[in-house]
Amino acid sequence: MKQIDKLDLLRHSCAHLLAKAVLTLYPGAHNAIGPAIHNGFYQDFDMGKHKISEADLPKIEAKMREILPKWKKFTYKEVTLTEAKKLFKLNPYKVEMAIQFAGENKKLTTNNPGDFLDLCKMTHVSNPSEEMRHFKLLSVAGAYWHGDAKNQMLTRIYGTAWPNQKDLNEYLAKLELAKKNDHRKLGKLLELFTVSDQVGQGLILWLPKGNLIKEEVENWAKQTEKDWGYQRVTTPNIGKTSLYKTSGHLPYYKNDMYPIMKGGKNEEYILKPMNCPHHHQIYAAKKRSYKDLPLRLAEYGTCYRYEASGELFGMMRVRGFSQNDAHIYCTEEQTVKEFVDVMKLHQYYYKTLGINKYHLELALRDPKDKSKYHGNEAMWQKAEGLMRLAVKQVDIPMVTQIGNAAFYGPKIDFIVESSIGREFAISTNQIDLFMGTRFELKYTDTDGKNKTPVIIHRAPLGSHERFIGFLIEHFGGAFPLWLAPVQTIIVPISEKHVLFGRKLLKELKLLNLRVELDDRSESLGAKIRDAATQKIPYLLILGDKEIAAGKVAVRQRGKKDLGLMTITQFTDKIQEEIQEKKIQ
Amino acid sequence: MKQIDKLDLLRHSCAHLLAKAVLTLYPGAHNAIGPAIHNGFYQDFDMGKHKISEADLPKIEAKMREILPKWKKFTYKEVTLTEAKKLFKLNPYKVEMAIQFAGENKKLTTNNPGDFLDLCKMTHVSNPSEEMRHFKLLSVAGAYWHGDAKNQMLTRIYGTAWPNQKDLNEYLAKLELAKKNDHRKLGKLLELFTVSDQVGQGLILWLPKGNLIKEEVENWAKQTEKDWGYQRVTTPNIGKTSLYKTSGHLPYYKNDMYPIMKGGKNEEYILKPMNCPHHHQIYAAKKRSYKDLPLRLAEYGTCYRYEASGELFGMMRVRGFSQNDAHIYCTEEQTVKEFVDVMKLHQYYYKTLGINKYHLELALRDPKDKSKYHGNEAMWQKAEGLMRLAVKQVDIPMVTQIGNAAFYGPKIDFIVESSIGREFAISTNQIDLFMGTRFELKYTDTDGKNKTPVIIHRAPLGSHERFIGFLIEHFGGAFPLWLAPVQTIIVPISEKHVLFGRKLLKELKLLNLRVELDDRSESLGAKIRDAATQKIPYLLILGDKEIAAGKVAVRQRGKKDLGLMTITQFTDKIQEEIQEKKIQ
Repeated sequence: MKQIDKLDLLRHSCAHLLAKAVLTLYPGAHNAIGPAIHNGFYQDFDMGKHKISEADLPKIEAKMREILPKWKKFTYKEVTLTEAKKLFKLNPYKVEMAIQFAGENKKLTTNNPGDFLDLCKMTHVSNPSEEMRHFKLLSVAGAYWHGDAKNQMLTRIYGTAWPNQKDLNEYLAKLELAKKNDHRKLGKLLELFTVSDQVGQGLILWLPKGNLIKEEVENWAKQTEKDWGYQRVTTPNIGKTSLYKTSGHLPYYKNDMYPIMKGGKNEEYILKPMNCPHHHQIYAAKKRSYKDLPLRLAEYGTCYRYEASGELFGMMRVRGFSQNDAHIYCTEEQTVKEFVDVMKLHQYYYKTLGINKYHLELALRDPKDKSKYHGNEAMWQKAEGLMRLAVKQVDIPMVTQIGNAAFYGPKIDFIVESSIGREFAISTNQIDLFMGTRFELKYTDTDGKNKTPVIIHRAPLGSHERFIGFLIEHFGGAFPLWLAPVQTIIVPISEKHVLFGRKLLKELKLLNLRVELDDRSESLGAKIRDAATQKIPYLLILGDKEIAAGKVAVRQRGKKDLGLMTITQFTDKIQEEIQEKKIQ
Repeated sequence: MKQIDKLDLLRHSCAHLLAKAVLTLYPGAHNAIGPAIHNGFYQDFDMGKHKISEADLPKIEAKMREILPKWKKFTYKEVTLTEAKKLFKLNPYKVEMAIQFAGENKKLTTNNPGDFLDLCKMTHVSNPSEEMRHFKLLSVAGAYWHGDAKNQMLTRIYGTAWPNQKDLNEYLAKLELAKKNDHRKLGKLLELFTVSDQVGQGLILWLPKGNLIKEEVENWAKQTEKDWGYQRVTTPNIGKTSLYKTSGHLPYYKNDMYPIMKGGKNEEYILKPMNCPHHHQIYAAKKRSYKDLPLRLAEYGTCYRYEASGELFGMMRVRGFSQNDAHIYCTEEQTVKEFVDVMKLHQYYYKTLGINKYHLELALRDPKDKSKYHGNEAMWQKAEGLMRLAVKQVDIPMVTQIGNAAFYGPKIDFIVESSIGREFAISTNQIDLFMGTRFELKYTDTDGKNKTPVIIHRAPLGSHERFIGFLIEHFGGAFPLWLAPVQTIIVPISEKHVLFGRKLLKELKLLNLRVELDDRSESLGAKIRDAATQKIPYLLILGDKEIAAGKVAVRQRGKKDLGLMTITQFTDKIQEEIQEKKIQ
């Protein structure tokens, strides 16, 4: 039996309990697989003649709680394939699994908590009735047997389980928050982005307010990267297919790209899936010397990848995206320092945004499957060696993933966790010893000889789409002042204060602040509530008292009133907050 | 015979003289058409067994000067088609023209200056030997008979002619300047942009220095348009073909677009040739009320049009371009004011850049060919009427062009003349009463009824590619300080002053100035010459004297030394120059 970690043990055990409950409530249903997953478990069922929905989950959960006290322990018994086939003859999924396990020379084991006989290769909790009490069913979905659309569609029930009620409650609260802060929901509420059936799935249209956030992030990146020695370029969104044959993306990467544009005169174009080959053309546009290196070419380049429609997810997984991209062309000697600086740049960006939970994922090639990768052994070892040297110089936790490398070199992803616990691979970085040769890039070294530069690929802020999708959830829509689409709203108490409000609006706009005036004839309470819904950082209330005093009553988002301030006091305060990119 | 204006008369007459010279020098050659064009004339020849190049032009010109004194006047004689066929039986082009003229019931006229009999429907100068003396041949090119690639390729000789030597000399000097300031030549010299065969023809790659200019222009446009009440959006570079069927671009505009991307699942995508349909999707993403209008959506949107490869011309005519685009959605009552403001915005932009020579071109549909246009009579008349009302309120000269309207409405182009006399259509503006209906765009009016907004299309700064191409020629590469990719270069007199130069470099960079240090071991003279070639606005010389005085010796581009200044004096001066966008 396979050993799994304690939390997975608990969750997988719960899948058995769920199976028992469903099979009891719905005669003729069969259970298929039921593994532990990140934060919970699922169990697949062939429901036979029955149909269930999320409305049925409370009933199933009640049945689980009714059964659980009788589950004192899991007992195990080895069986032969013949015995297994006989025991589970009514369940074709278990029979198939038994045949498969036996074929892999694995022992077949049944277990039997309470009176529920099941076939399973896993271990389970020692004291089910005590340990398994803190669970909750969450959702129902369809899933193909073996994940293959040619097989039967099964019913999958998701649940979560934790060692104690406190952990369960905390997780459920996080899930609630995640629902509330879902970037798709907030994106609609705050009018940040939209998609259109006529334009196409996975293609984001940035509405004015979302666009303001995007511009702020982009301007910040441009200023920062200028300070860090980058030069900016702009390249087209398309290239000839020959460009991608040179890079090796065609034919290998073809399924991830939009279809080829086949024109007259034997010209074929394709939307670029990444900016690298274009930047290499700029490198090659001029004779380069060691004096030009490191050359850091940066672009918020817009790329297109034809992700499967089932994979698309709001702004997080899209088909068109603008990447905070750059390529650093350098000598081998400069590589480690440059890569360290790239990681320090990540740290600077993330710290400014209050992103504290992240780790590195070092993606290496699978040494057993070298056919998937270009380049020779020495190249792969050198690239990995340089990366490891660089990583040692920064203090960021790292895990290693075998088999996830790019086809031309190892990579390091930054995996970032949002405030609601969702993890995203935001940024991919590579030390590339391959493409320089492929594109015949050269520089003249101090000794007058032509050499091939090392290329570092990096994208600390990922793509606008995914990064701002992430920021929406990270901040729950309550953006820091410098990013807030509307920074301040002026709320006149009544009709007679509107004129003064207009004057103030004009004055604040001249300071390049993003201000609105709520001159609707709604009650003060309604206006304050609406501003809170829109998560506007500051609200300035204008009434007789305030106008008489030449001041405004300032309310900060999510906090108490800050009292009366003169306009100058207020603008000094918020300009400092903007300047310093403070997080409230 | 057709009357033409005086300058055209002169130039067309010169084409006859050119024909006579070529036919004399190259027996068996035949002349085809020879019209006056902007600033000159051309004459097409079937050269028979001969071949000529630009090296032959002096010889031909000499022959023209030899013949001219004998040309005392053009004599005219009407002939019948039979007579014409007989007179020009050796010249198939003239015979074809004779048949065509006769078919159009036009009179056939021969003329005969000196001893040169020709068939022509035009009038000519009265006193050739006197009036035609100030001409010059310029270039040779190939041209198809009737401009149709299926016909024979003829040889076209271009020339220019003026009423006096002074005008001719001025024009030739302008041509020289045009060659020197050609944006393709300067673009290469100043490292502003490049193209790559692997990426594709007509697709600009912006190099770091060109990209800096583009960013400055774009930031200026963004700030200006924000001040003028625009909101910015971002939309994808592609859309489904159905989007362009709705807009009517497909199938009519198909030949001007890149080929369709035909994917699986019956999805077809195409690169957007303009931003309008995408902006309409943003308008439609939300229920709109009269309170939301005018809604001004702006985007530097990147579009693609598959221009014929023969039409491509540096950055001026390209296949991919980012347009200073916006669409104003407004009520009919707001239209004239909005359109006037759009024209005032043009004036503001152009004045800032010292562009003083421009006029409007009102492009109307051809009332004889209504099949080319959508919409009804009333719509066209209303759109034209609104435009004319708006134009009356601004003081810009205007000419009218029949037949150049868009398929959905009349348009007003801004035609701008560069300092070297080259004219470009920079900006196209439309009042569109058609697309709102086509896309079913609505707003709720004060009376609660749903109405269709008027859409104004505008692009004062055209596309980055064409506009910056124009600016390169306009400024001859000597950009005003705020646009200059390198604003200041520090030139240490010798090795021992380099360290101080580095300190100064750092100091100036902290002020966000674009500064370079010339620390090569070249002579001072060479460094100053190179800075002049690169057209860098300010040069700071650092030697013993300067360092001792805590000052720098300042040289301004194209001017004398400005003497010694403290760093603060210098930075105050140039920051003001940048702030005010001064033109040197």
